[in-house]
Amino acid sequence: MGLAAAIANGDARAASRLLSWIEDGDRRAAAELKELYRLPAPSSVLGLTGPPGAGKSTIADALVGRYRARGERVGVLAVDPSSPISGGAVLGDRIRMQRHATDGGVFIRSMASRSWPGGLSRAAADAVRVLAAHGCRTVIVETVGTGQGEVDVTRIADTVVLVCTPAAGDKIQAIKAGVLEIADIVALNKDDLPDADVAARSIETAFRMRPPGGWRVPLVRTRARDGEGIGGLASAIERHGRFIAGGGILGRKRLANAAHHLRSIVRERLLEKIAARLPDDREMERRAARLLDGSIDPYSLAEEIIESL
Amino acid sequence: MGLAAAIANGDARAASRLLSWIEDGDRRAAAELKELYRLPAPSSVLGLTGPPGAGKSTIADALVGRYRARGERVGVLAVDPSSPISGGAVLGDRIRMQRHATDGGVFIRSMASRSWPGGLSRAAADAVRVLAAHGCRTVIVETVGTGQGEVDVTRIADTVVLVCTPAAGDKIQAIKAGVLEIADIVALNKDDLPDADVAARSIETAFRMRPPGGWRVPLVRTRARDGEGIGGLASAIERHGRFIAGGGILGRKRLANAAHHLRSIVRERLLEKIAARLPDDREMERRAARLLDGSIDPYSLAEEIIESL
Repeated sequence: MGLAAAIANGDARAASRLLSWIEDGDRRAAAELKELYRLPAPSSVLGLTGPPGAGKSTIADALVGRYRARGERVGVLAVDPSSPISGGAVLGDRIRMQRHATDGGVFIRSMASRSWPGGLSRAAADAVRVLAAHGCRTVIVETVGTGQGEVDVTRIADTVVLVCTPAAGDKIQAIKAGVLEIADIVALNKDDLPDADVAARSIETAFRMRPPGGWRVPLVRTRARDGEGIGGLASAIERHGRFIAGGGILGRKRLANAAHHLRSIVRERLLEKIAARLPDDREMERRAARLLDGSIDPYSLAEEIIESL
Repeated sequence: MGLAAAIANGDARAASRLLSWIEDGDRRAAAELKELYRLPAPSSVLGLTGPPGAGKSTIADALVGRYRARGERVGVLAVDPSSPISGGAVLGDRIRMQRHATDGGVFIRSMASRSWPGGLSRAAADAVRVLAAHGCRTVIVETVGTGQGEVDVTRIADTVVLVCTPAAGDKIQAIKAGVLEIADIVALNKDDLPDADVAARSIETAFRMRPPGGWRVPLVRTRARDGEGIGGLASAIERHGRFIAGGGILGRKRLANAAHHLRSIVRERLLEKIAARLPDDREMERRAARLLDGSIDPYSLAEEIIESL
């Protein structure tokens, strides 16, 4: 039995192996994914984004508990393009989520990657489908990214929850352009910290400037470590799910995201073809020797190389 | 007079404008860079890397003070691919470096980018040459990157200083594989924090495992905010500079980096050519419609599109 069939059959190890192939850019992944993409997408893909330390994992953990209480299988994907020295939250996520580690109905996976962020977004979208094939109705994707050199969670999720805290930095960052457009729901976590009321007001003011009509972004105050506010957050998520299911919004969103994913695959494949045709490292160094004495500049030399291909 | 000539003539505004073009991916940059790359490279490119909050900017600030005391013009490039919500240090850098903001002999520039990290590495390498043309003998490049989805500072700098603190997380991260290979010098900053001795020992143990022969990575303890240890750090940097200048190490390093930079430019140019040939968003969505009902998978569809190009 191939991996795809085994995954659809409920084999968690097969799912793990395919996720590793996806993460490593292993060429064997594509054949399995071709099969998996014939299976239904997850009912709901929930994105959790926000600065490191805001409590995304704690919130994911609390939401997982709620879905499990309803008997649903749920997947969590923590995507982080961080390097070892920039302090990614991946290890922490794994530790914090241990509460569900022995629950067969919860599939938790951290993903990091050496590939460029475009590739990581593509990989995360593929990973969501692996979890769906494994029977996860809901997949939670947790990431610090907003698409600027990182993973664009809006390209993967149906509903995006921005998790922030009353900390001054978070507040300023949250209000910055770019973040306003991606959040469907704002969770103000750690709301027992000082200045929570001030933070809540400034966030509400910022979101009030969004164009009228359509979805009004709710602010939910949470204290995820104590489970406070999680019920309210889950309700807001369900309300948003109903909102996008009506009027064809979800369909249009998924079509746009499918097109984006398709474009990423085409780009990556073409890049691979290009890379195969470029001079190897030794030859590139031989050519680059002319750069060191200033006898030619790299832009002119690059043009020479491209013409010679 | 073109920007390149103006920059070589000491015009700081011209340098700023070209840096903005580089940052924005403005097509006019290439013509100016073609001229600038005929001018000499900087004598020394120093990379400062480490987790956010470790004190990279404070150390850069202190080192700038030393170079200025010798009357040398110095450039600082703070490169950060962070998104608005992951909490980049760019704004903080600008604020902390204000001490030198009115000194015409110091050129400070923050660079962020929406482009993918490969593009940002290429842009940072170009920016270094702009500062060199502007008369900066030494250019300090400050980044959280190690090349995993970020900017690879080893591809730009002659000497890489890893800045870390006794904080537990930093220690663990610093010892992780990948970081060991890139550091030429380790600065243990904020060494008045608890556990500094423990951190110093664990770092020294980790670096002792590097293959014998060649450069022995020194650990310098600093308290950059008070200027403590900066003299020792500057000496270590100079010692490393003499080490690589001997035996042709610097030449080989710069050749490898020039080849890497050249490859980045070729790749980017080819990618642009590809992007121009791909179906536009509307057409891509039209094709992607077949994905939503599972009648085809995105990998097979991508192959169809590539064959049709």
